[in-house]
Amino acid sequence: MNIKPLADRVLISPTPAEEVTAAGIIIPDTAKEKPLRGTVVATGNGTKDEEMVVKAGDEVLFGKYAGSEIELDGTKYLIMRQSDVLAVLEK
Amino acid sequence: MNIKPLADRVLISPTPAEEVTAAGIIIPDTAKEKPLRGTVVATGNGTKDEEMVVKAGDEVLFGKYAGSEIELDGTKYLIMRQSDVLAVLEK
Amino acid sequence: MNIKPLADRVLISPTPAEEVTAAGIIIPDTAKEKPLRGTVVATGNGTKDEEMVVKAGDEVLFGKYAGSEIELDGTKYLIMRQSDVLAVLEK
Amino acid sequence: MNIKPLADRVLISPTPAEEVTAAGIIIPDTAKEKPLRGTVVATGNGTKDEEMVVKAGDEVLFGKYAGSEIELDGTKYLIMRQSDVLAVLEK
Amino acid sequence: MNIKPLADRVLISPTPAEEVTAAGIIIPDTAKEKPLRGTVVATGNGTKDEEMVVKAGDEVLFGKYAGSEIELDGTKYLIMRQSDVLAVLEK
Amino acid sequence: MNIKPLADRVLISPTPAEEVTAAGIIIPDTAKEKPLRGTVVATGNGTKDEEMVVKAGDEVLFGKYAGSEIELDGTKYLIMRQSDVLAVLEK
Amino acid sequence: MNIKPLADRVLISPTPAEEVTAAGIIIPDTAKEKPLRGTVVATGNGTKDEEMVVKAGDEVLFGKYAGSEIELDGTKYLIMRQSDVLAVLEK
Repeated sequence: MNIKPLADRVLISPTPAEEVTAAGIIIPDTAKEKPLRGTVVATGNGTKDEEMVVKAGDEVLFGKYAGSEIELDGTKYLIMRQSDVLAVLEK
Repeated sequence: MNIKPLADRVLISPTPAEEVTAAGIIIPDTAKEKPLRGTVVATGNGTKDEEMVVKAGDEVLFGKYAGSEIELDGTKYLIMRQSDVLAVLEK
Repeated sequence: MNIKPLADRVLISPTPAEEVTAAGIIIPDTAKEKPLRGTVVATGNGTKDEEMVVKAGDEVLFGKYAGSEIELDGTKYLIMRQSDVLAVLEK
Repeated sequence: MNIKPLADRVLISPTPAEEVTAAGIIIPDTAKEKPLRGTVVATGNGTKDEEMVVKAGDEVLFGKYAGSEIELDGTKYLIMRQSDVLAVLEK
Repeated sequence: MNIKPLADRVLISPTPAEEVTAAGIIIPDTAKEKPLRGTVVATGNGTKDEEMVVKAGDEVLFGKYAGSEIELDGTKYLIMRQSDVLAVLEK
Repeated sequence: MNIKPLADRVLISPTPAEEVTAAGIIIPDTAKEKPLRGTVVATGNGTKDEEMVVKAGDEVLFGKYAGSEIELDGTKYLIMRQSDVLAVLEK
Repeated sequence: MNIKPLADRVLISPTPAEEVTAAGIIIPDTAKEKPLRGTVVATGNGTKDEEMVVKAGDEVLFGKYAGSEIELDGTKYLIMRQSDVLAVLEK
């Protein structure tokens, strides 16, 4: 069973905190909102106001409080609007 | 007697919490808003800003506090805007 | 003397709570906003952003806190925007 | 001296509470916002977003807290936006 | 030296409270926002959303808390958006 | 080194309070927001919604809390949106 | 690995406070929001409402609380919308 996000939403598999450090991205300890990292699993079809630019497989950064958490077959995911995605990590 | 939702609203029969676990979706115990699951029973005709993409029979995820509760002939339903539906579950 | 609602407003004769139960719609006892039921008596002509789809005679559901209450010749009515109407009951 | 309302505003001579009861409209004693009644004295020319549909002479209903109060030559008036007018009373 | 208001703003010379009473406009003693009176001294050129309809010399009514106060060569003025002007007084 | 404001922002060199009094503009002592005075040093190129009408050299009035303060080579400036500028002083 | 900001966001390498003073920009000690300085590292492709005008290499000023902080390979960055950038410093 797959989850197909609606409209301009994306389904993201969040990267565990350890992996993040290993990859060189350290979430600093400040009062600012800290962006987190994950991999896009599925995207909606976009809306007339928001064309989809992220795609499945993209590694992305997003704010700490972005999206809603769900768990499918034992795996945790986040579902959020594309506008809550801050950046794509390019290799 | 049937309920015909107005504009961009959808009528949803919520899936009881037990069934959700059985299907592999477990609502995690965090501070984040937890999406719930249900089956679309009826939809409105959409508006010029919001075309309907969910249809009767779709299994959908939605936020915990989305919509209004009603009860028709002993069955409980939720009525909410399509924009409150997060994703469609595809089999 | 008749009341002609302005713009996208509708005048509704609310169904007393007893009748609602008899018809099979029971307002559940939860923290969620509870939709109520009534019959449309008159509608405005709509606006360029909101075309009128409900019409006099329609049985409709609406949120508990929707609209303003008025009393004409001893009968109580509610006047609200069409966007506050959640659904039409079809027989 | 006359008052010419600007844009989409209307100048209303409010009907005293006694008269309202005599005409059969009784303001019910509930927590809901109570609409009041008056006669339109003058209207603005409208805006491109709001065409004027009420006209001088119309008896109208409006919310209790709508508009600003002014007094001209000893007579009290209310000045409000047309969108604060709920309905026109037709004879 | 002159003050040229920007965009859809108007510069108003407020009428002292005594004069207002003499002219027959008495600010009533209620909880509602009380409109005040003044003479337009200068206007901006308008915006594409707000065409200027008031002009220098117009006597206008405006809300008590509308605009900012300035003093030029010993005279006090108010500068506010045209949308804060409620009505023009016609003689 | 120069500061080029972005979009619809303007860079303003605020006029010291003493000078303001000398020029005949006295900031009155009331509860209302008090506009201040300054000289435009640089402007952005505008946006499609906000065409620039103030230009370098213009003396302008603006609200007391408008904009952000910066200091370049020992001189203090304010940077604000053009819509926070109330009026231009014409000589 | 590079960070590609989404939509109208820019990735900024903030200038340390010492450098700022050396360059002649001193953040004054007032209650107003204090703009800070940095160098643009990467930008998004813009949106239909917001065309990108800043580019990699630009030195920019931005508000103290603008954006989210991230750290990549030991270097701290800020990611913010272009509309949070106040001005470009021209040499």
